[in-house]
Amino acid sequence: MAGTPPRSPLAPEQFPDLPIIDGVSFAAAQAGVKYSGRADVMLAQICAGSTIAGVFTKSATRSAPVLDCQAKLGIISDAGAAIIVNSGNANAFTGKNGTDVTRAVTSSVASALGLPDDRVFSSSTGVIGESLPHEKITRKIEELKLALSPTAIKAAAEAIMTTDTFSKGASAQITIDGKTVSIAGIAKGSGMIAPDMATMLVYIFTDAKIAQPDLQAMLSELNEVTFNSITVDSDTSTSDSLLLAATGTSDVDVAGNGAFREALHGVMKDLALQVVRDGEGATKLIEIQVTGAANDSDARIHGLSIANSPLVKTAVAGEDPNWGRVVMAIGKSGAAADRDLLNIRFGDIVVAEKGWVSPDYNEELGATYMKQSELVIGVDLGLGTGKSTVWTCDLTHGYITINADYRS
Amino acid sequence: MAGTPPRSPLAPEQFPDLPIIDGVSFAAAQAGVKYSGRADVMLAQICAGSTIAGVFTKSATRSAPVLDCQAKLGIISDAGAAIIVNSGNANAFTGKNGTDVTRAVTSSVASALGLPDDRVFSSSTGVIGESLPHEKITRKIEELKLALSPTAIKAAAEAIMTTDTFSKGASAQITIDGKTVSIAGIAKGSGMIAPDMATMLVYIFTDAKIAQPDLQAMLSELNEVTFNSITVDSDTSTSDSLLLAATGTSDVDVAGNGAFREALHGVMKDLALQVVRDGEGATKLIEIQVTGAANDSDARIHGLSIANSPLVKTAVAGEDPNWGRVVMAIGKSGAAADRDLLNIRFGDIVVAEKGWVSPDYNEELGATYMKQSELVIGVDLGLGTGKSTVWTCDLTHGYITINADYRS
Repeated sequence: MAGTPPRSPLAPEQFPDLPIIDGVSFAAAQAGVKYSGRADVMLAQICAGSTIAGVFTKSATRSAPVLDCQAKLGIISDAGAAIIVNSGNANAFTGKNGTDVTRAVTSSVASALGLPDDRVFSSSTGVIGESLPHEKITRKIEELKLALSPTAIKAAAEAIMTTDTFSKGASAQITIDGKTVSIAGIAKGSGMIAPDMATMLVYIFTDAKIAQPDLQAMLSELNEVTFNSITVDSDTSTSDSLLLAATGTSDVDVAGNGAFREALHGVMKDLALQVVRDGEGATKLIEIQVTGAANDSDARIHGLSIANSPLVKTAVAGEDPNWGRVVMAIGKSGAAADRDLLNIRFGDIVVAEKGWVSPDYNEELGATYMKQSELVIGVDLGLGTGKSTVWTCDLTHGYITINADYRS
Repeated sequence: MAGTPPRSPLAPEQFPDLPIIDGVSFAAAQAGVKYSGRADVMLAQICAGSTIAGVFTKSATRSAPVLDCQAKLGIISDAGAAIIVNSGNANAFTGKNGTDVTRAVTSSVASALGLPDDRVFSSSTGVIGESLPHEKITRKIEELKLALSPTAIKAAAEAIMTTDTFSKGASAQITIDGKTVSIAGIAKGSGMIAPDMATMLVYIFTDAKIAQPDLQAMLSELNEVTFNSITVDSDTSTSDSLLLAATGTSDVDVAGNGAFREALHGVMKDLALQVVRDGEGATKLIEIQVTGAANDSDARIHGLSIANSPLVKTAVAGEDPNWGRVVMAIGKSGAAADRDLLNIRFGDIVVAEKGWVSPDYNEELGATYMKQSELVIGVDLGLGTGKSTVWTCDLTHGYITINADYRS
C-alpha cells in the first residue's frame, strides 16, 4: 500500500464508551498475519448458557470461515462459546486448504478454552487467495486467553480493522421490569470488499436471555433493514459475517419484547451507518427514502438502484442536484414505475412532481442543499404503499485512488 | 460544462469511409437547441418500399420519442420514411409536453417530405427534464430537406454527438448471387446516460431486401450479443434507440441469409465497441469471456456482474491483476457458481484454477499483461456449456471528473 487514507470526514468524533456485557470478555494481540506494529487478532469468550445467532454474505464464493460458522450455528448447545477473528488475510478462495486452516484455528481455541470445537466461530478479513499462516494465530492463543477482560472491547474493535479509517462501536441500555439489559457491538468495513483489503464483520453482545430460534429470527429480520440496506459500491464480500451472542446473564427474557427489539435495531443501524460513513472515499452520507411503491420489495429495488448508480453517486460528490439521474436509476431498476406519477425531493425540497420538474423548484435551493454532508433523497412512486430506506455514500476521486492507484 | 474531455485514447484513428446506401440520404444543420457553433440536428430520408426495425431502452421512464418510435414500428407500411434526431435536449421526463413536442417535430418532417406521420421516427439526446424548444428544429426542416444527400452520413454522425469524444461509423459490403449488398451505420454514446448529456443512439441502413418481421427478428437477436452486451457504468438511458432501415434497392433478398446476418453482426459489434471505447474516462477496453456456466443466461449474469463491478474496473484502471475481485464479482452475481471449480485467466495467462491461484501463475506476468489497452478476462465456471461475452471499460479518475466535477 502506498499510504493510508485519512480518517473519514463523516466519522464520529471518537469510539463510544460501551457497557460491559456480563459473561463476555475480550482480548487482542499482535500476531503479525500481515500487518506489523498493530493488533490483528481478537478473541471473545462467551459464557455457558449463551445463545448465538448469525447472518452471512450470500456470495456463492464465500470464504471457509463463513461456511464453518454457518454449519456450527445449526448446532444448538448450552456450552460456552468463543469468536476468533484475524485481519490481514481473508482465507477466501483458498481451496481445501482454507477449510483445514479454519479448523486448525478454531480447534486450537476450543482446546485452550475447554470448549467443544463446534462452539468456536471464526472470521478472517484481508487478502483473498493466499493461504492463511495459521500458526501465527495459534501460537498467540495462550497470550489471548490470559489477556481476556470484560473491558477490552475497544481493543477488539481495533484489531479487526483493515482499510477502515476509524474503529466502530455502538451500544444501548434499556430497563425491562426494573432490570437493565445491555447491548454492545463492534464492526469493521469500508468497501464492500477489496482483497487488499476490506469486508464487513460485526459482533454484537447482549446480556438478554432469549432462545436461539427467537434470537435468530429477530436478527434476520433486523438485518434486512440495517446491514442489508447499506451499499458502498454494490460489491459483495466473500466474508461478510454478523454474529450476535446473548448471554442471559441479566436474567431478563426478551422474547417478543418490543423495547429490546428497538434497542437492538438502533445498535445495528448505528453500526451499519458507521460502515457507510467509512465508505472508501466517502464525503457524503446519503439516505434514500422510497415510498409509494407497488410493494416493499419494489421499493427496495428502486432504492438500491439509486444507491448503486455511479451517475447518482458522482452527482452527489459534485454537489449537483441532478434529479434526472435519479429518474434514470428508477427507470432502469426493473421494478414498477410510472414516469408521470413520480415525485422526487432532496431533503424537504420538492424537485419533481408528476413526471416533470416542480413549478416551485429553484435550482439554487437544490444546489445549496447538496452542500450538506448528510443528504436525503426522497422518491414517491405514487403507485401503492410499498416503502424502503437504504443508505449509501458518494463516489469520489478518493474511491478511485484507494482502489486503482494503490497497487497491491 | 467546464471543458471537453480529450479524444478517447481508445478511439479509432479516423471516421471510416462508409458506402452509399442507395435510397437513403442525409442532412445536418445547426438548430441551436443547446449547443452553438456546431450541427445538432440530423435528418435521414429513406425511400418508399423500405422496411424498418428497431430496438429500444427497457427503462420504465423512457422518453417521449422512444414511446413514439415504438408505437410507429408496429405499423407496417410501403411508404417512404424519415428519421430526425437532435442533440442537446433529450425530451425525457417532460410529461405530456414531451409527447406534444415529439408530435410537432415528426409531423413537420412528414409534411415537408410528403410522408404519413407514422413513418417519421425521432430521437432526442441531451438534458433531461427541460422542454425541447421544438420550433428551433421545425424551422430548420426546409433547410435540411434541401441539403439531403446520399454522401452526408458523416455530418449526420457528428450532429448527434453529445459527450462523445469521436463520431462513430461502421460498414460492411458483401456479394450475394453476384450482387453487392451494403450496410452503413452510425452511433453516439459514451456514458450509458447523463442528463448533461449522453445516451446511446444507433442508425443503420442497408440496401438489402427483407420483410419487416424478418428484419426485426434478426435485429433483436443480434442486439442481444452486441449493444445489449456492453456496459460503461451500469446506468441505462431513458432514450437508447437503434433503428435499422432496409431499402431493398440492391434487389437482393437476404431473409435467412447467413452471410448478410454475419455482416450486420459485424457492423453492430463494431459500433457497440466504439461506444465502449468512448466510455467516459475509459483507458482500457475489457472483453469478459464467460464459459462453462450452467446456461447462457447464467453466463451473461456473471459477465455483467464482473463488467459492472467498481472494484474490478478500478483494478483494471490501476493495471492490477487482481483476480480476487473477479472471484468476488462471480460470487455476488446470484447465478450458479462453485468456488472450487472456478478457472480464471487474463488473456492466455491462467491465474486461478479449481478455486485457488494456479501453481504456474506468476504475478509479474499478470502485471505486464494488464498494461495493454485491450484486455480479455476469461472465466470458466466448470459447470456446463453456457457462455457469454460482454464488453466494458475501466473506471478511472476521468469518469469522476466528467460526472462529478463538471457542474451542469
